[in-house]
Amino acid sequence: MRKHQLHIVWTAASLVLLLSCSTQAEEGGFPFVLPKEKPNRPLSAAVERNYTAYMAARPEDNELYSQFKYTELKGLDYNNRDGTITRRDPSKVIKANEKYYVWYTHRHTDTPPIRTDVTVEKVPSRDWDLAEIWYATSKDGFTWEEQGVAIPRPAKPGLGSRAVATTDILKWKGRYYLYYQAFPDDGDGRVNDCVVTVSHADSPDGQWTPTNAIVIPNGAKGEWDHLTIHDPNPMVYRGKIYLYYKADFDGVPPTARMAGLATADNPLGPFQKHPLNPVLSSGHETSLFPFQEGIAALVIRDGNEHFTVQYARDGVNFEIASITELMPISAGPYVPDAFTNTKCGRGITWGICHVNHASLAKGVQNSILLRFDCDLSLDVHDPQMKKHRYLYKPEFYLQHRLSPAQRKRIIEATTIREEKP
Amino acid sequence: MRKHQLHIVWTAASLVLLLSCSTQAEEGGFPFVLPKEKPNRPLSAAVERNYTAYMAARPEDNELYSQFKYTELKGLDYNNRDGTITRRDPSKVIKANEKYYVWYTHRHTDTPPIRTDVTVEKVPSRDWDLAEIWYATSKDGFTWEEQGVAIPRPAKPGLGSRAVATTDILKWKGRYYLYYQAFPDDGDGRVNDCVVTVSHADSPDGQWTPTNAIVIPNGAKGEWDHLTIHDPNPMVYRGKIYLYYKADFDGVPPTARMAGLATADNPLGPFQKHPLNPVLSSGHETSLFPFQEGIAALVIRDGNEHFTVQYARDGVNFEIASITELMPISAGPYVPDAFTNTKCGRGITWGICHVNHASLAKGVQNSILLRFDCDLSLDVHDPQMKKHRYLYKPEFYLQHRLSPAQRKRIIEATTIREEKP
Repeated sequence: MRKHQLHIVWTAASLVLLLSCSTQAEEGGFPFVLPKEKPNRPLSAAVERNYTAYMAARPEDNELYSQFKYTELKGLDYNNRDGTITRRDPSKVIKANEKYYVWYTHRHTDTPPIRTDVTVEKVPSRDWDLAEIWYATSKDGFTWEEQGVAIPRPAKPGLGSRAVATTDILKWKGRYYLYYQAFPDDGDGRVNDCVVTVSHADSPDGQWTPTNAIVIPNGAKGEWDHLTIHDPNPMVYRGKIYLYYKADFDGVPPTARMAGLATADNPLGPFQKHPLNPVLSSGHETSLFPFQEGIAALVIRDGNEHFTVQYARDGVNFEIASITELMPISAGPYVPDAFTNTKCGRGITWGICHVNHASLAKGVQNSILLRFDCDLSLDVHDPQMKKHRYLYKPEFYLQHRLSPAQRKRIIEATTIREEKP
Repeated sequence: MRKHQLHIVWTAASLVLLLSCSTQAEEGGFPFVLPKEKPNRPLSAAVERNYTAYMAARPEDNELYSQFKYTELKGLDYNNRDGTITRRDPSKVIKANEKYYVWYTHRHTDTPPIRTDVTVEKVPSRDWDLAEIWYATSKDGFTWEEQGVAIPRPAKPGLGSRAVATTDILKWKGRYYLYYQAFPDDGDGRVNDCVVTVSHADSPDGQWTPTNAIVIPNGAKGEWDHLTIHDPNPMVYRGKIYLYYKADFDGVPPTARMAGLATADNPLGPFQKHPLNPVLSSGHETSLFPFQEGIAALVIRDGNEHFTVQYARDGVNFEIASITELMPISAGPYVPDAFTNTKCGRGITWGICHVNHASLAKGVQNSILLRFDCDLSLDVHDPQMKKHRYLYKPEFYLQHRLSPAQRKRIIEATTIREEKP
């Protein structure tokens, strides 16, 4: 018995010693070679997060980090960018019939937009006013052939008699569905309000059959999405149609913009809004795509979490996956697995976006389409896309200058005056 | 007894009803007017975080969110930016003797830097090679008078006989301390390695007494900071000297850069490194300043959390406070309360930074100083600084283009070829 007890004591002592050595081994300074996995040592909040919040300890290895590169599209004319022709808000790019397809808001008016809050016949009050949905096809994604109108403005009382705009594509059981914003021609002056409707066809070349039905109903009065449902973004996920959308709300102080989710078993609905909506607190013209087991989002422009790529393992609860810069506006990525009900989304490498301060005439609203490339794909590894930051000349910084009012305030507040004796 | 029991049942029932009503009141859609405080309802992860991770639900109200504006400094010449004169890595700006003071790395050489890994007499191998620490003063922060050298390169064996650079200022008990990087003139070819030393004076105009001592020792071999201690950044916090610094480590794949903390009771040390180092996982030439009860940091350029402003309530455990763009490089902010041992740091509104791709000659390294303005202050409310994003023309996007190699790879991988019959 005594021998046995002694043995236990010795074993325990060895264990303590072993544990203490093992702890000590980790208790020097943080290692010189950056560990790929979280080291077993006390960490500051930032370094802990560097291992728990991101896919890799370095942006270079983070599959959801990328810079973005831009290329002009060949084949699309803009009338010398005088504001009379706009193309904007591209859909996802899809591949069909041995071609790439993209749909977009197309406006060709006699005059550029004249910003008013009333609707005037033939005079656009916004860049997307009086627009139709057109489409183009391409073999390489750089040179595009415009094919003309896909969804024209219908005669009253068809939905969208004033403008149809900001479309996105869904393929479901061999049929194609274009969801889009439909602006009424009712002259009530609220030119921003619209509903979302859907047209469908058995080929991406049409003919498109309008449903003339509101497919995502606005929220009840007092709810965040009661005035606008914008930027419909459909895909197939978990066997259902997941349709993300944006709403503009509040407004005093500035508009709040967040994104919600509605799901359905059928492309024509009924769509059920998710009880945790909004699912993204930030972003404007957010793009989403299946990624690994969840959904990734390009969260651009607005809100506390602008300039991020986010990821939700469940399609609902998004976390910041990376922080980046110069993200594509209103990106319509090529998402090969958007409609395959994939359980491991592969990500994206290119798409079409717009730039909406494109007019060469001052004060005129006009948007053009550009191509963007990136590496947010599990299948591509492009170190040039994973650089940490763009470098700029002083002249670029100096373009971001104080306004005269700011400069006056600052000089008054901070200049050291001679003290009078 | 029965009556009493009944009463309890009724009370319980009322309570259930009351709770259920109170829950129901929150169970419609998310409200149209963005709540300032977190609403009592189930929230998605992103909206939950919008209330718990940031100082406000909107960037407009987030005291640690700002854009940055840039202004050219008057009074400093750069020889037509031919690369022979560089000013970079400014210190914090301080106010003394009814003037603003800033110290910086100053190089004036016969030739621009010629990038080599050996030291050649009189030929700079990097932008900061053969540099001294100079200073300038100003009444308004826009026009500066260069006052000449503060810390010259000492003769051997003085620390920094090859270059002294990247300084920051501390005021402690009426005396001034300049911490800076000291590069040896030992011709061993490792031009990036240096130590941090300190000189002190009873006036910001000098004379500066070198201690000729290494003030923050490098880590032991195998630790993250064993090769470099860069960017010393001292301030007074919790009654001590808090000195943040950066180390470059690893290197294959690219250099990892993180920031650590060393504290001391005396400006000449000994400095104790924090056991949780590194305290920032990201950033390069990070600037820090007291903010509220803690410390805020401008985390720029490198790492998963580049382009953020971070905040640590305890000066150690930093969290992302905002995400922004076009942050000042190597910012030396004017921090009025950097040395006051404040318990409520007021933040910053301006400072000096550098741009280090300033040369007008191609391939030549050259940095110039700029002024930056922002609103990261509890005392200023400038809505123009709180806008969500800068807007750019298509030409700016198109400057960020695919390399020829990228374009070739992408066209090969994504062009749809005619299928051979």
